[in-house]
Amino acid sequence: MPVPVAPFYAISISRRAHELKQQGRSIIHMEFGQPSTGAPAAAIARAHQVLDSDGMGYWESQPLKERIARHYAESHGVSVDPERIFLTCGASPALVVALHCLFDPGARVAMARPGYVAYRNVTRALHMEPVELPCGPDTHYQPSAAMIAAIDPAPDGLILASPANPTGSVIPPEELAAMLRLCRDQAIRVISDEIYHGLSYVGPLPTALLLDEEAIVINSFSKYYSMAGWRLGWVIVPDALIPNARALMGNLFLTPPSLAQHAALAAFDCAEELEGHVASYRRNRELMLDALPRLGLTRIAPPDGAFYIYADIGHLTRDSLSFCRALLEDTGVVTAPGIDFDPVEGHRHMRFSFAVSTAEVEEAIARMIPWFAQAAAEAGRGPA
Amino acid sequence: MPVPVAPFYAISISRRAHELKQQGRSIIHMEFGQPSTGAPAAAIARAHQVLDSDGMGYWESQPLKERIARHYAESHGVSVDPERIFLTCGASPALVVALHCLFDPGARVAMARPGYVAYRNVTRALHMEPVELPCGPDTHYQPSAAMIAAIDPAPDGLILASPANPTGSVIPPEELAAMLRLCRDQAIRVISDEIYHGLSYVGPLPTALLLDEEAIVINSFSKYYSMAGWRLGWVIVPDALIPNARALMGNLFLTPPSLAQHAALAAFDCAEELEGHVASYRRNRELMLDALPRLGLTRIAPPDGAFYIYADIGHLTRDSLSFCRALLEDTGVVTAPGIDFDPVEGHRHMRFSFAVSTAEVEEAIARMIPWFAQAAAEAGRGPA
Repeated sequence: MPVPVAPFYAISISRRAHELKQQGRSIIHMEFGQPSTGAPAAAIARAHQVLDSDGMGYWESQPLKERIARHYAESHGVSVDPERIFLTCGASPALVVALHCLFDPGARVAMARPGYVAYRNVTRALHMEPVELPCGPDTHYQPSAAMIAAIDPAPDGLILASPANPTGSVIPPEELAAMLRLCRDQAIRVISDEIYHGLSYVGPLPTALLLDEEAIVINSFSKYYSMAGWRLGWVIVPDALIPNARALMGNLFLTPPSLAQHAALAAFDCAEELEGHVASYRRNRELMLDALPRLGLTRIAPPDGAFYIYADIGHLTRDSLSFCRALLEDTGVVTAPGIDFDPVEGHRHMRFSFAVSTAEVEEAIARMIPWFAQAAAEAGRGPA
Repeated sequence: MPVPVAPFYAISISRRAHELKQQGRSIIHMEFGQPSTGAPAAAIARAHQVLDSDGMGYWESQPLKERIARHYAESHGVSVDPERIFLTCGASPALVVALHCLFDPGARVAMARPGYVAYRNVTRALHMEPVELPCGPDTHYQPSAAMIAAIDPAPDGLILASPANPTGSVIPPEELAAMLRLCRDQAIRVISDEIYHGLSYVGPLPTALLLDEEAIVINSFSKYYSMAGWRLGWVIVPDALIPNARALMGNLFLTPPSLAQHAALAAFDCAEELEGHVASYRRNRELMLDALPRLGLTRIAPPDGAFYIYADIGHLTRDSLSFCRALLEDTGVVTAPGIDFDPVEGHRHMRFSFAVSTAEVEEAIARMIPWFAQAAAEAGRGPA
């Protein structure tokens, strides 16, 4: 029997949270990067229409692929042939397709540590080797061209994420350009996970396609478009990989959900509503940044984008999983332990998602301030 | 760059059909096993409710898992712990999870030939080795215990499908029992794809779980429940594989579509409507069986279940892909070439799906009779 891949611990914490909710506890879900806002009104209206008029068989929406291509033209000035766009059941299968299209078993794929849990685990599940790049305060919690150049031998691939999960950090534009140039020169294939695009607090961000036509780009309707449970993402592959991507999609996944494809097309016309969500995240981020010192959390990654705060809790614990579990049991605030994102340093980090409502962020802060004070007092008393 | 997996040719034919439809052509979709009926009314009503009341984040429905478990208790007399049930975005990812949970790269997995395209291709995509068992008229188009016993060395796994795709054939109950007994004795792990359960014209069918607690069972809401485009399936794993299946799901796929999970729960209460669909398939099947001799198709697999006719067209062509493409161009009837299901004999077979309406089946037959007569005349004239 194969060796199991590592679990996604936040899922187990979330399951416990749902149990507690069933028992009547008040729960604030800050464990996943999941907007609490729901899909835009026009997307929901379109879904109602389709429910009453469409048999919803297996389907791939050509209009949606064309609309996504238009988005790249309008927002990034990049021309993308819709044939290069594959619609997926969320960004997770998109990563499977991207890795499988590019690499053979044994391939070495570089990625930031901390980083999204699935980068490491899916790479391993596909029998490739993650090459983890330790990223911290010194490197803006992101890899750099210098770090890539120093990998010996050069890796086969590189997964980039900007804004990143769990940190929210953004790769500075000139650094991104330098990395993509280096990767082209060294034939390192790039997968750019742009799922948090649109959620930036430091200005607009370029797609990797602007700088590297051969990059594979992943994105989704789960974050900016606030449609997580609709399960719709996309992956853009270079021309040469179209046949392989199509074959993989057909065999491994068939088609993405029909209703989500209809609704997502409408979501592209909901800029005002969606920018309203971003304004709300911006407020939540300010509230969190204001509150963190009062929680005693002063060493955090730069929350340039997304809706995460990744905080060093090394002064409070060496066991982030137990710490997050205790926080949930005591306060009802659900968070993600750093071990999901960093097998080396994650035991002393945790991630807060502020994609909930502003009222929930305020309530979570109110609950956490005394709890963290207590935790600090206990940490000060006993052995680490 | 990795060697691409084989394409799913019916998808390319279907894409061409959609182009023709855009041009105003009348198209009858018999290429996929896709009910044209749409979800049951109660499922659609529930979806409308949820659209207006639920933010639809990442979610796994515990009530749905419990309802599925109840279905196994009521319909099969088998007790299944809901914790063993994983909800997936259709049956396709369920197969990925099943194969990945059970086998390492290099494992040898036996399966019927002809068989569903993804069995062979996903097995290869996961770097395992398909061991194809040639199945034809002599073996009811299904593997047998004798065939499994004759594989030397014994395979690591076996994928069963009853009713099968593309043939609709059902494994006789005593043969199924013999195969599962043999597999248990020889430590051959079984994946039983039961996606066509509920669609039987030869009486109720047992789940493999009844005979082998260690089997992995795959099923979905796409066929009997008529919810293909909702993308919701399930996989049942034995206790020992729960942690691995959970980790794979979380990393490779995250969660299945929220709305589909709500709607599927309601679909379980729609027996009358769903049995009406089965009655319609039964009529369509009779119409097809009546018409096939008039098309000159006399060598077919036994359509015991599902909604397929798999026909030998070796007297008409040695190139089923071109044949199906020509049928589409000339008549608007879309079918699947045998090469999707059988790399050896598929060039001389084709599959019809009769999951469309009875009126469409009648119309398709009317269009095909003269076309097949013409094809026979041409085949009689020229070299094969």
